[in-house]
Amino acid sequence: MSDHLDCFLAPKGIVVVGASSDSSKLGYSLARNLVQTDFNGAVHFVNPRGGSLLGKQIYTQIALVPDPVDLAVLLIPAPAVPAALEDCQNRGIQAVIISSGGFRETGPEGAALEDRCLQIARRSGMRLMGPNCVGLIDTTQRLNATFLQPPGPKPGGIAFLSHSGAICAAIIDWSFGQGFGMSRLISLGNEADVNETDLLQSVAADPMTRVITLYLEGLSDGRRFIAEAAQAARRKPLVALKVGRFASGRRAVASHTGALAGQEHAFNAAFKRAGVIRANTAEEMFDWARALAWLRPLAGRQIGVLTSAGGPGVTAADALEANGLRLADLDRATQGALQAALPPAASVRNPVDMLASAGPEQFSGCLQLLLADPAVDGVMVILPPPPASSAGAIAKAMIPVIQNQTKPVVVALMGDRLIQEAIEHLQTAHIPEYRFPERAAAALAALAQRHEFLSRADEEPELDPGVNRALADQILQTAYETASPGESSRGEQSSMMLAPDQVVRLLQAYAIPCAPLELAASANQAVLAARAQGLGQPGRRFVLKIASPDLVHKSDIGGVLLNLDSEESIRAGFDLLLERARQAQPEAEPERKPQAVPPNLLGVYVQPMAPSGQEVILGMVRDPQFGPMVMFGSGGIEVEGLKDLAFGLAPLTRREAVEMLAQTWAGNKLNGFRSIPPADREAVITALLHLAQLAHDFPQIAEIEINPLRVLPAGQGALAIDGRARLG
Amino acid sequence: MSDHLDCFLAPKGIVVVGASSDSSKLGYSLARNLVQTDFNGAVHFVNPRGGSLLGKQIYTQIALVPDPVDLAVLLIPAPAVPAALEDCQNRGIQAVIISSGGFRETGPEGAALEDRCLQIARRSGMRLMGPNCVGLIDTTQRLNATFLQPPGPKPGGIAFLSHSGAICAAIIDWSFGQGFGMSRLISLGNEADVNETDLLQSVAADPMTRVITLYLEGLSDGRRFIAEAAQAARRKPLVALKVGRFASGRRAVASHTGALAGQEHAFNAAFKRAGVIRANTAEEMFDWARALAWLRPLAGRQIGVLTSAGGPGVTAADALEANGLRLADLDRATQGALQAALPPAASVRNPVDMLASAGPEQFSGCLQLLLADPAVDGVMVILPPPPASSAGAIAKAMIPVIQNQTKPVVVALMGDRLIQEAIEHLQTAHIPEYRFPERAAAALAALAQRHEFLSRADEEPELDPGVNRALADQILQTAYETASPGESSRGEQSSMMLAPDQVVRLLQAYAIPCAPLELAASANQAVLAARAQGLGQPGRRFVLKIASPDLVHKSDIGGVLLNLDSEESIRAGFDLLLERARQAQPEAEPERKPQAVPPNLLGVYVQPMAPSGQEVILGMVRDPQFGPMVMFGSGGIEVEGLKDLAFGLAPLTRREAVEMLAQTWAGNKLNGFRSIPPADREAVITALLHLAQLAHDFPQIAEIEINPLRVLPAGQGALAIDGRARLG
Repeated sequence: MSDHLDCFLAPKGIVVVGASSDSSKLGYSLARNLVQTDFNGAVHFVNPRGGSLLGKQIYTQIALVPDPVDLAVLLIPAPAVPAALEDCQNRGIQAVIISSGGFRETGPEGAALEDRCLQIARRSGMRLMGPNCVGLIDTTQRLNATFLQPPGPKPGGIAFLSHSGAICAAIIDWSFGQGFGMSRLISLGNEADVNETDLLQSVAADPMTRVITLYLEGLSDGRRFIAEAAQAARRKPLVALKVGRFASGRRAVASHTGALAGQEHAFNAAFKRAGVIRANTAEEMFDWARALAWLRPLAGRQIGVLTSAGGPGVTAADALEANGLRLADLDRATQGALQAALPPAASVRNPVDMLASAGPEQFSGCLQLLLADPAVDGVMVILPPPPASSAGAIAKAMIPVIQNQTKPVVVALMGDRLIQEAIEHLQTAHIPEYRFPERAAAALAALAQRHEFLSRADEEPELDPGVNRALADQILQTAYETASPGESSRGEQSSMMLAPDQVVRLLQAYAIPCAPLELAASANQAVLAARAQGLGQPGRRFVLKIASPDLVHKSDIGGVLLNLDSEESIRAGFDLLLERARQAQPEAEPERKPQAVPPNLLGVYVQPMAPSGQEVILGMVRDPQFGPMVMFGSGGIEVEGLKDLAFGLAPLTRREAVEMLAQTWAGNKLNGFRSIPPADREAVITALLHLAQLAHDFPQIAEIEINPLRVLPAGQGALAIDGRARLG
Repeated sequence: MSDHLDCFLAPKGIVVVGASSDSSKLGYSLARNLVQTDFNGAVHFVNPRGGSLLGKQIYTQIALVPDPVDLAVLLIPAPAVPAALEDCQNRGIQAVIISSGGFRETGPEGAALEDRCLQIARRSGMRLMGPNCVGLIDTTQRLNATFLQPPGPKPGGIAFLSHSGAICAAIIDWSFGQGFGMSRLISLGNEADVNETDLLQSVAADPMTRVITLYLEGLSDGRRFIAEAAQAARRKPLVALKVGRFASGRRAVASHTGALAGQEHAFNAAFKRAGVIRANTAEEMFDWARALAWLRPLAGRQIGVLTSAGGPGVTAADALEANGLRLADLDRATQGALQAALPPAASVRNPVDMLASAGPEQFSGCLQLLLADPAVDGVMVILPPPPASSAGAIAKAMIPVIQNQTKPVVVALMGDRLIQEAIEHLQTAHIPEYRFPERAAAALAALAQRHEFLSRADEEPELDPGVNRALADQILQTAYETASPGESSRGEQSSMMLAPDQVVRLLQAYAIPCAPLELAASANQAVLAARAQGLGQPGRRFVLKIASPDLVHKSDIGGVLLNLDSEESIRAGFDLLLERARQAQPEAEPERKPQAVPPNLLGVYVQPMAPSGQEVILGMVRDPQFGPMVMFGSGGIEVEGLKDLAFGLAPLTRREAVEMLAQTWAGNKLNGFRSIPPADREAVITALLHLAQLAHDFPQIAEIEINPLRVLPAGQGALAIDGRARLG
């Protein structure tokens, strides 16, 4: 399989099917690009009309193309593509780029045609790129198999994989002004066969590629992407722009977690896990890619700022802070040395303001001092057009200083005409320059992210061998089997809700402590259940909750009674809840509401009241692309309004669990706040890890939600008070 | 006064004091710029050495300079400036730009020198610009009174006022590539006298100026800035970049409101009130300024997107949403007409994807159709390098379509070399173009902000004539007078806290309903107070709260008891609270804590329990720059952790109060959520307006906080349960 993929990236001979001598046709542009870039393999042309093109013969059939040929590029009308694929197969060509459009992107007929192409390919192990793509470029091999207007990109260290073809043309053209070159550019088109994930390893293995950039409109297999990207990211930095952020991805959900876990959360969690740095715009992606291609990662977050102007220094300080970086506290010795090198009015505290009079010597000398300071992890130099010297001369003076050491340096080079020479010097020396401090700061932050990924790349998700997987499996089996006919008739979703007592046992099997819960079908049973849990003992109080698979948000209909401490109150409570339940409308299936089906009523759950404590929500949902995700945050009924939440991929590493807590107010509050005492934070982390493990182990669980998890004082644990689970 | 300001902006004659024939000196650069730009007034030079420069005589003294001369620019060593100012005064020059540095920015000696200069100026009504500034430029008058490297900016519609000099050089140079010109550029330097606010009206009145941009490091008089900026903004759009966002601005505070109301909130509220559009970066500021200078405001938020490429169309849709804009729902007729004009595979739903083959005719024709659709308020055109035609030709074809109608159109022109011709066509036609859809979307959002400001510019803050201002005044007087010696000895801050019963009366004077509160010095008094409020009646329950000016956060020490419904419980509660208070440490002044001063104890407050309801926080604090600000949000003790808050300037317009609610979850929840019933939102708005009015009327009030305000069901009002107020 991977052999055929290599044919795309290192072909010995290419045939352009649909090569045309009509210079207005894309089949001409493609042929021209291949010939003009002086590709170091063979180039052949096919067109039924024959003739010659660019000094080469045009063969009338694919069968006639001589060796070597292992890659075909098709630029022929879509309906002719299946036959051409057969011809390729017969000629022994196992890698085909279908550049032509007219497939899935045009509607059902095109989709059927695309499926036919894929079937043909699958028969013989042939691999397809496209259809509906721009093609690919490899500057090392001088291969330009696209129909884009020349010139192609300069050689360089950035590989670009794109779901959009149009953006390729724009980025190549834009790269000239930005001063970056490309190792490879691959336009993936409709991804009938080969997709972005398939190519990650081979691109990461390319010695010319120093960073991989991805323009993504979605992913077909999120988990596989994570695995492949994480592996690639250990070798080379990955930066991705994921578009379609606001595309609606609605689906049936039965929990807050489900309603809140949008695909953006999933992508963020996935990218973080895989070490993919997420950019918000194309500008950011390539700003960061230049820094990642040319500089070492940023080993810490303390930045020195060297400027000849106070204003931009303030902007830089703002931008560093906004990007999670900090102004380094300069060593006294550094400050003294700076003082000696600068006029008295200069500021030698960070940002170091050398004043407008600073010339090449000040810039290079002070930069050296800053880089030598052990408190400084990296430097931003700010260079507006100097009033008395040339920006070019200053840039030139700094280059050897930067190249003779290892800390990353970026330059905010402000202006246009007056800085052209400086831009050229820096670009040639592979020192990233940006027009404004804000963009420079964001690039430094990408270097810091890179460092942090590398330092945690080997952490493994935490899977506790002590959980009772067999028991959980049995509980889920039973749940499937006991789904009563009455429930099933209500439709798939409600039938798949686990009963609360099943949820309790399921969570307990995975070492998540739960408040005990017993189902009582009558007031007598309720009293007996409460007695068994100590009814009548001092301070012992109980909760009653409606037991009905149809009433999902019990508290909304007053279906939960608290603080019951006597037989009488439990009896009265039982009757009250049953009455409320009878009046309530099932809410699980809104479309059925008008029929006013009375809810399926099992009785009442009896639960001893747990000690008081902080309350949080833990949840789990299955993302269509990335599989199981867990959620942590502020619980209660306001969870969907407050949105104090964090998401992670299941199973979780311990660090991820800790970071999820740190991202939320609910998590920070566990450390104690004002009169709120510290709670058992470790118990929450453990519960979150176990929940993630449960989600990971049983793909049949669609959603779980624990709301609330009551967190007791430090050392005393946490208790799931109310839980629900839905099977898929 | 304003006459002298006009001398800066429209001088008849200028004298350069410190003009130099040494081309390495700034005094030469300044002279050269004035002469080379062919200023249409008189230009004179002064230097004690005499001689001639650029074909003009150099006078040895200011006294010798002939008429006309009404503006001096000083580029001489700082210590010589005061004498030169005297000379200017004697020569009758009343406007002076001190370009030289060496003043306040260098330390206390420089500051003293600056003060001396200001004294000299004040004596005769002379106005100073600077010191430590780059000077000013007016392209209409061909006036370049700066020492910056030529060329100066092209003439254009953007005025730029800057607290940073260095950024001026960078922005001028950068403007050439961005294709914008400037009407005026003013570098304000240290602002010893003339500041940004002084110049707003005259810049807004300039017929060549279409938009005013501001680079701000701070404001000396925030309220005056708001007034002047709001007036200027009615005539011309204002865009500001405020730097120093993370500068710490700590001060003593005695409330959550005080701790949370950072200067960023204040600037945001002030800019919103004044109609100043706030940019986050210099790039954004000038991106938006071009759109505001060249296009009409965006009358609605429905945008049509016209593209030849699907990928960037998705990016545009994301970016519109992220900027609070929406994809317009195209009319059926529009879709039909687009269908007729485009190939079948094109997408005629918004974003309209014409496919890569689209040429000048499709772009101009479809653009016309989009603009004619009544559902479309403005259009973003996306133009990557077209594979088969030239971006320049496409741009040229669209220009007449855009110019023949009134809706704003921006172009995302993607690339570099292949789009140069298109860039030039569009810039010449004053159609804003940006490299990526994200920047184009943000520019459209600025046009929408502009429209929204103009539609609300005449709304006035709401001041209720029915409040009892005299009573409030009297309460504050009494509070000052009754501050006991014991309290004063604890330092200014605690002495100025109003007693809770005073707070209640103060709020009630401004029609903010409060739960009644009575101070009881003994358990007997507490029982009597409760009886007077109905103790013993069914359902009547009471709260007791520690009464001590030293214990600010009562609930943190268990200083609040709830649900007391009998004489016995009130007596016991009284004793318990006093015991807790004795054990507590005063917290108002942390530096005094180690001394363990027992808190000053007045007794206990007795308060009937209010009906249940939602709880919010209302606060008021005095910002050092912008004066009174009000806060609204989620209350309780977690307010500083949750940060679900919105801020506004006092007094508030009704719209501002409504928007503050809409910005927070606490405000949205008032409409009801799940089992939480709708609450009296109107009562909250009214209370917020009244609180803002109180803050406005009494500058001596430093802080007020109502936490919680209990909001009853709709129509039943809201009650302040706990309040505190501090006098300044």
